Amino acid sequence: MARTEPARGMRDFLPEDVRRREYVISIIKRVYERYGYEPLETPAAENLDTLMGKYGDEGNQLIFKILKRGEHEASGQADLALRYDLTVPLARVIAHHQSKLPRLFKRYQIQPVWRADRPARGRFREFYQCDVDSLGSTSPVVEAELCAAVSDALTELGFADFRIRLNHRQLLTSILNLAGIPEPLHGNALIALDKLDKVGVEGVAAEFEQRGIPVAAEALIERIRGFQAKPGSMAGAFDDPGEQAWRNVAKIVYLTVGTPAEKHVDLDLSLARGLSYYTGAIMEINVPDLAGSLGGGGRYDNLIGMFLGENVPACGFSLGLERILVVMGERGMFPSSVATTPADVMMAVFDPKDLDSAMRVAGVLRRDGLRVLIYTEPDKIGKQIKYADSRGIPFVAILGSDELANGTLTVKHLAAKTQNTYEQGSAGAAILKELKQRG
Amino acid sequence: MARTEPARGMRDFLPEDVRRREYVISIIKRVYERYGYEPLETPAAENLDTLMGKYGDEGNQLIFKILKRGEHEASGQADLALRYDLTVPLARVIAHHQSKLPRLFKRYQIQPVWRADRPARGRFREFYQCDVDSLGSTSPVVEAELCAAVSDALTELGFADFRIRLNHRQLLTSILNLAGIPEPLHGNALIALDKLDKVGVEGVAAEFEQRGIPVAAEALIERIRGFQAKPGSMAGAFDDPGEQAWRNVAKIVYLTVGTPAEKHVDLDLSLARGLSYYTGAIMEINVPDLAGSLGGGGRYDNLIGMFLGENVPACGFSLGLERILVVMGERGMFPSSVATTPADVMMAVFDPKDLDSAMRVAGVLRRDGLRVLIYTEPDKIGKQIKYADSRGIPFVAILGSDELANGTLTVKHLAAKTQNTYEQGSAGAAILKELKQRG
Repeated sequence: MARTEPARGMRDFLPEDVRRREYVISIIKRVYERYGYEPLETPAAENLDTLMGKYGDEGNQLIFKILKRGEHEASGQADLALRYDLTVPLARVIAHHQSKLPRLFKRYQIQPVWRADRPARGRFREFYQCDVDSLGSTSPVVEAELCAAVSDALTELGFADFRIRLNHRQLLTSILNLAGIPEPLHGNALIALDKLDKVGVEGVAAEFEQRGIPVAAEALIERIRGFQAKPGSMAGAFDDPGEQAWRNVAKIVYLTVGTPAEKHVDLDLSLARGLSYYTGAIMEINVPDLAGSLGGGGRYDNLIGMFLGENVPACGFSLGLERILVVMGERGMFPSSVATTPADVMMAVFDPKDLDSAMRVAGVLRRDGLRVLIYTEPDKIGKQIKYADSRGIPFVAILGSDELANGTLTVKHLAAKTQNTYEQGSAGAAILKELKQRG
Repeated sequence: MARTEPARGMRDFLPEDVRRREYVISIIKRVYERYGYEPLETPAAENLDTLMGKYGDEGNQLIFKILKRGEHEASGQADLALRYDLTVPLARVIAHHQSKLPRLFKRYQIQPVWRADRPARGRFREFYQCDVDSLGSTSPVVEAELCAAVSDALTELGFADFRIRLNHRQLLTSILNLAGIPEPLHGNALIALDKLDKVGVEGVAAEFEQRGIPVAAEALIERIRGFQAKPGSMAGAFDDPGEQAWRNVAKIVYLTVGTPAEKHVDLDLSLARGLSYYTGAIMEINVPDLAGSLGGGGRYDNLIGMFLGENVPACGFSLGLERILVVMGERGMFPSSVATTPADVMMAVFDPKDLDSAMRVAGVLRRDGLRVLIYTEPDKIGKQIKYADSRGIPFVAILGSDELANGTLTVKHLAAKTQNTYEQGSAGAAILKELKQRG
């Protein structure tokens, strides 16, 4: 007998899971469409060299590789790989279909990605990302609209307490320059600073020393906190690129005023973001009851150039569907309208020879828009009703000899313990009315 | 510079493609939900041994295998494989989650599958299947409902001329028995008979001889055609299992009377279906202008036993999304409401400093439900309008100094060459009204 587990770190989604996932996805899609983002989908597998080298050494290790087919299979050589994120495939698509795509292109993409990470609580090897990106424009409206769209989606899902932390890669660079940290050590310094929340000032100082950064972390952090407390004090404090970055961030915040992002966006100078391809603004979303982030993103003006040979400005945001689902589940944020029952009505039949009539009447109810399940087995009516009850189906429609003789249908509401008999043609409307009343 | 092609045999779906795919999927889903089928999703990758040996030798060759991770990678050993169809994962899920699933379970599943086939026109290495299955019942209502649901979905998509061919594995067996073909040669005989449409009676006769089947194909085909012309003549013609099969088929056809399948289901005694796991009724859908089938299915009462150790009756239908899309595209069956434009309205701005106001007004229009794109670049208004026109965006909303001073918005309908100025708060309703009128 074959084993029955799903692959390690991957999940089967039973009907209730799928319905919750689709509820969240449908809201995110609807909001992104309102902002003029268009849907894109790419294959699950990419040529291996499309992905290798785009995510750093650690990323390379986590890419699932697919064996070459046919006679080459024995060699153990891989030529394909499973999609690792949605950003690199986007960059490839922009380069490949450039003539078919508009100069200014806004797209969203909601698809699974695969990472050969060690599975852990809340960390899976197959998980969905919900990405939204603008291509072709350097305007700060791009960042502001991304923040507005993401805020709009989260708000519509029922989140009120999320925070979008905003920073800028060049601003970090200029602050490190100001502190006298040599450029080649910036990467190390950012990795250390990124841990401030977790390890405190002493921890960062220890890591600076360990990583050979010739600057007192305490003074640097104090300066960052000073800027953070009075952002206006940054005006005129930096070299020219830093000054521009600070103005860019200020403009982004200004543009979100009056949008759904208004109360959620804050400058956070301690935000660094891991990925190396960011070139401008960077963003991350947090909620108080989740250790990691709900999503993040930023501007990456050079990535598409790796595929196209010329740079195309780009900026995007990725929401983590699995984390949104976890928080919504823990907080009880799913409305009862996210159906957890297989049907609105179950047709019960006294005599199996009347199943043809059951199918006909079910057809009438379905044309009214009801979801109808026919009980197929020759069981006693009591057992049939018990089954409907166990599945949470609110109505049972019974076809017995009286009903068949009179062209009627007896409809039981299980929870209310009520029962009514209708003409077959008008039963659907009556059930729909009662469904609406009872919510 | 990295190459930009998608992997061989796989496709990028640009916005217009995604919208057409989602239009078809949403109709199929909605119809299946009305019949009480529930959604299920399984991982893209399965443990290798879950898939191997389930699809015959040819199938084994076409399974994409994924390399073991970590230090094992160098060995070239595979431990995972990409989903090859949706039926075997369903059987695994039924066995694995048995305690959480109802005794009678109806599910649909719409997900991609991967096959390392040689790519050709209309044949891809990544393609979607739309499966619908009933588990736990041997009632002919199951087959009749599957035919009704599939017919309902195809009808709602706009198909009128499809034909569901229905046959039964045991009926074929009994006919071959009647003709005196020894049981071990039945498989070969069915393969030959399956080609009747293509190679004619002589072709089948030649193949019978070549495959060592000691029976005149002409007489057998004549007998099948006789039964086909007068199905009633099958009553009493067979051994007991054949008699039961013939009654089962007749019952299925009878039960579809009055359902959306009524005018589409026909008995076709020449239908054989390739897969070896079918045990009862088999079905296939065809349209005149497509060489292959739009979908097919049948009863497979023994497959789940391979995972569970005890058999669970099962019957299902699989629609091929890609083929449905091809025929719908060729026939021009997509309604104009399948949006091919990125937005309903584009905001054009005279002066980039007014982009903040553009974002605010866009927010007002979006709250009315409109899809709104903001033009972000500091281009001349003429160029901005040209962009909207080239993207098929019907309305351009212009914010100039007059509009800003008066709290108004000027809205151009590009095709009609009309222009109106509205209060900003009432512009959305006016645009929506015009959108509806113009379709």
